[in-house]
Amino acid sequence: MVNVLFAAGAKRWPDYAEALPEAFAKAGLNVDLARDHAPETVDYIVTSPNGDVQDYRPYTACKLVQNIWAGVENITDNPTLTQPLARMVDPGLTQGMVEWVTGHALRHHLGMDLHIHGQDGVWRDFVPPLAWDRPVTVLGLGALGAACATTLAGLGFPVRGWARSAKDIDGVETFAGPGGLSQSLDKAQIVILLLPLTDATRHIMNTERLALLAPDAVILNPGRGSLIDNDALLGALDEHLGHATLDVFDTEPLPPEHPFWAHPKVTVTPHIASETRPRTAATVIAENIRRGEAGAPFRHLVDRSSGY
Amino acid sequence: MVNVLFAAGAKRWPDYAEALPEAFAKAGLNVDLARDHAPETVDYIVTSPNGDVQDYRPYTACKLVQNIWAGVENITDNPTLTQPLARMVDPGLTQGMVEWVTGHALRHHLGMDLHIHGQDGVWRDFVPPLAWDRPVTVLGLGALGAACATTLAGLGFPVRGWARSAKDIDGVETFAGPGGLSQSLDKAQIVILLLPLTDATRHIMNTERLALLAPDAVILNPGRGSLIDNDALLGALDEHLGHATLDVFDTEPLPPEHPFWAHPKVTVTPHIASETRPRTAATVIAENIRRGEAGAPFRHLVDRSSGY
Repeated sequence: MVNVLFAAGAKRWPDYAEALPEAFAKAGLNVDLARDHAPETVDYIVTSPNGDVQDYRPYTACKLVQNIWAGVENITDNPTLTQPLARMVDPGLTQGMVEWVTGHALRHHLGMDLHIHGQDGVWRDFVPPLAWDRPVTVLGLGALGAACATTLAGLGFPVRGWARSAKDIDGVETFAGPGGLSQSLDKAQIVILLLPLTDATRHIMNTERLALLAPDAVILNPGRGSLIDNDALLGALDEHLGHATLDVFDTEPLPPEHPFWAHPKVTVTPHIASETRPRTAATVIAENIRRGEAGAPFRHLVDRSSGY
Repeated sequence: MVNVLFAAGAKRWPDYAEALPEAFAKAGLNVDLARDHAPETVDYIVTSPNGDVQDYRPYTACKLVQNIWAGVENITDNPTLTQPLARMVDPGLTQGMVEWVTGHALRHHLGMDLHIHGQDGVWRDFVPPLAWDRPVTVLGLGALGAACATTLAGLGFPVRGWARSAKDIDGVETFAGPGGLSQSLDKAQIVILLLPLTDATRHIMNTERLALLAPDAVILNPGRGSLIDNDALLGALDEHLGHATLDVFDTEPLPPEHPFWAHPKVTVTPHIASETRPRTAATVIAENIRRGEAGAPFRHLVDRSSGY
């Protein structure tokens, strides 16, 4: 019997109480899943940064802490967490992210708002350019960024991608390191932020980098709010930027009085791009526990030195 | 010297006067392109249904009439046109169509309007279902329908396709003939109309067929206005349909007083989904003329018996 503690909160529990037992059974695991095991008896913890466990020290036998979020910046700095920590790489989350990014990129590319707002009887038969003529840049080429870059390239956009270390992605022109960042952003018309949040990426979109983009460029941020310097963004929107569609914020929910809500060039979406889906996430969790029990290496372990 | 008459109208002439000579040169053709050749000297006619030539009888030496539209229903019924007739299959037009269809499908799939219209400070973190759980049906599996079906399947949607004759498309569940039509539409959540307009397809979306769709289903019509019975559509929108995004109409421009403009569940776009792009279309035209001069069979000839 394997003891698994579900510590990702009461709100998530009903979905996972249904999805996890099914996934454990499919993986051939005999699991006692609960929200209240005695700490020293726990073999695995399923958690989230804002979950029930903040002090991981009593879980002395715990072989793995499995985060259900893709982002780990609010958990890697917990000094009590010394157990191996795995990020969630959920195919459902990746799929949802690709859909959000592709849909919002096409909204701006096609100039859809002209027709959504302009149902006034005027026949405005302006034909937008083809994707072939609309350069897109994706910052961050992890599981999510690479999937979005590949999908947008498949739709015909010329796609550049940037990551800290060199990556090779079919159909995408990739850049790496500090020197490659400016090249990757030069005259981009749509920029998608999917970097992890670290000391090196905080406010990576500052005034200087925003100035590299094409006139009327659009920024999509489904990554992390603090990747953007908000004051720089508001300034650039007043100058040359076309639009920003933002899904993530320093404070969530975004307070009603925040200027983003009322800004005509900003669309706020409520952190819906990167939702972990219990059904697919449960399969990933079960697979990592199966590996632990079989003595195989865990998947998606966080490298504490880089922070992701 | 090959004499090519450009008869697709004054509005189109500037773009094609630039694009066609380049394409002819690349194809190694020595062409005299003009809008006013003596009829009996013309080797090829580049035309459109509403173009300069309505009586094709004087063009006795003409080897091919090349339409610059994908749709040919307003030219196949011209009794003076006895020369071989080719439809335009323009990679630029196909690309634009895929972009329009994918973008508008994702707009509805993601429930984007909630955020485009709802920038009021309320955090509505409803997460839409994944594409995996959103069945899409494409009616018409010619060059345009097949490309759209393939792209949507690639994005994760379960896609059914229907055409008059059986087709085989990777990743798409295909149906054919009158019997297959109801099966292909059963509980569809997004339906895309890309059929040619013939006597058999006029008003194919009638009350009975609209009733087959899922509650809150969305119809995208970038094909031909008369594929839909408009009264049946307005009735179905009042009953169970979610939305219709329409790019084509029986009369264009759609008159300002038409009920579609003001209907809260209808989005009108001004016939922009299927625009032939001069640069890519010119390459297609040049290739067909090259074939004619080399004695090779023409591409994309219209079958007069089926009407497309």
